[in-house]
Amino acid sequence: MIYKHKVQYYETDAMRIVHHSNYIRWMEETRVAFLDEIEVPMQMLEEMGLVCPVLSVSCDYQHMTVFGDTVTIEAKLEEFSGVKMLVSYTMTLPDGRVCCKAQSKHCFMKDGRIVNFKKKYPELYEKFLPEICTSEEK
Amino acid sequence: MIYKHKVQYYETDAMRIVHHSNYIRWMEETRVAFLDEIEVPMQMLEEMGLVCPVLSVSCDYQHMTVFGDTVTIEAKLEEFSGVKMLVSYTMTLPDGRVCCKAQSKHCFMKDGRIVNFKKKYPELYEKFLPEICTSEEK
Amino acid sequence: MIYKHKVQYYETDAMRIVHHSNYIRWMEETRVAFLDEIEVPMQMLEEMGLVCPVLSVSCDYQHMTVFGDTVTIEAKLEEFSGVKMLVSYTMTLPDGRVCCKAQSKHCFMKDGRIVNFKKKYPELYEKFLPEICTSEEK
Amino acid sequence: MIYKHKVQYYETDAMRIVHHSNYIRWMEETRVAFLDEIEVPMQMLEEMGLVCPVLSVSCDYQHMTVFGDTVTIEAKLEEFSGVKMLVSYTMTLPDGRVCCKAQSKHCFMKDGRIVNFKKKYPELYEKFLPEICTSEEK
Repeated sequence: MIYKHKVQYYETDAMRIVHHSNYIRWMEETRVAFLDEIEVPMQMLEEMGLVCPVLSVSCDYQHMTVFGDTVTIEAKLEEFSGVKMLVSYTMTLPDGRVCCKAQSKHCFMKDGRIVNFKKKYPELYEKFLPEICTSEEK
Repeated sequence: MIYKHKVQYYETDAMRIVHHSNYIRWMEETRVAFLDEIEVPMQMLEEMGLVCPVLSVSCDYQHMTVFGDTVTIEAKLEEFSGVKMLVSYTMTLPDGRVCCKAQSKHCFMKDGRIVNFKKKYPELYEKFLPEICTSEEK
Repeated sequence: MIYKHKVQYYETDAMRIVHHSNYIRWMEETRVAFLDEIEVPMQMLEEMGLVCPVLSVSCDYQHMTVFGDTVTIEAKLEEFSGVKMLVSYTMTLPDGRVCCKAQSKHCFMKDGRIVNFKKKYPELYEKFLPEICTSEEK
Repeated sequence: MIYKHKVQYYETDAMRIVHHSNYIRWMEETRVAFLDEIEVPMQMLEEMGLVCPVLSVSCDYQHMTVFGDTVTIEAKLEEFSGVKMLVSYTMTLPDGRVCCKAQSKHCFMKDGRIVNFKKKYPELYEKFLPEICTSEEK
């Protein structure tokens, strides 16, 4: 799944590059677009009383990005057992250089409790299935 | 009421000054501290089911601020009829120069409806009273 | 000039609506797109050593916006004498309701000094001219 | 080194908890305070033409935080060879529960090149030395 983000001026900092905290936000933008694409949009999840908190993130910054850059973000669903979901992100600059490699781990919760998505919502879980990376793809 | 904010690196932008959107956030920080001071903390309002949305803001930027500056923000409760609340803010740099003059207008809402705070919560409204500026003070 | 912004999750706050400081950022996104459209892109201005600081902003919040909303922002160049530039913004929800009316004032600076854009860069100033609202349009 | 951050309303999101990207910003606040404490303030580094970019971050979110919480952040200088600096952060809630464990890796750069801080600025490097964790402390 490919998402594009255009760097805004308010995302820069005094080093004249994008502040590193924004990449974490772009990862969220990408996840939201991914969920839209597989037809499990966040808004639908919210109406079902579900939230999808972030359990962990990691980011390797490999090249700076600057105001006006269009960053291409490829997201892959690395793992999703039904309980924990692992997403990886590869961000590239227009010239093809990788600027950031990142991962985020998530679960789904309802009424403050972790939900086994696979068991509780099998028809929705199926929409994730074709997206889960096989080891070959990685 | 005086509040102090130390400028963070992530608040700067590529002009090497504070991004103008952050002043709007400092105004909120100051209001929260003001409500704490008069013992009507936001958390209490939230427990009562009240929210305090922003109806309008305006900001005059008079001097830039940079990373590391400690900005002193003086907030005044200009008007509070019980329905609409007008707050003014004067932000100064350590050397006394004014960097920003601003205003924000608010109401209180419960269950999606505007509340007459004075009528509904007279004992809380009284806590705001001594803070409301008389015309002389302005 | 019309710009569209899709509301991100990270732009929401605990009231479950967009935090009011983000509208200020969308105004900047819109200005950047406007400058691109008239072929005076910010990047070109920066290469010329010019910056375009914000002198003032004002926002009237008329309807809340929520995660996932696509907000349409119409920007108008109200005034641009060559020194001060006044931009107005009308933000609407997909159903046509206005959610925010706003204004921002700017100047152009070089080496810390205000530049008379009209005098110094007449060929660039001309690109702004057709965009300046006549009183009838307002 | 201990730093305290009070959660602001604008740091919350529609889940009514702090948006996860803000922890990355608190890590920066803590580093800035740490550099102040050892008398190698960022401002001094900037005057010397040095910047301290972030090479990587990772965050384990263990408990949510909400508006008004005061989060205590303990930073440790895990490694600093003179080239790469590794900082760890343990964030705790007032009741002592850990809400986040995090790490960030940095280098120092001048004129776009990585600097061997130990070789180039030995007298400054010495100020970091007593802070570097021995294996026992970890």
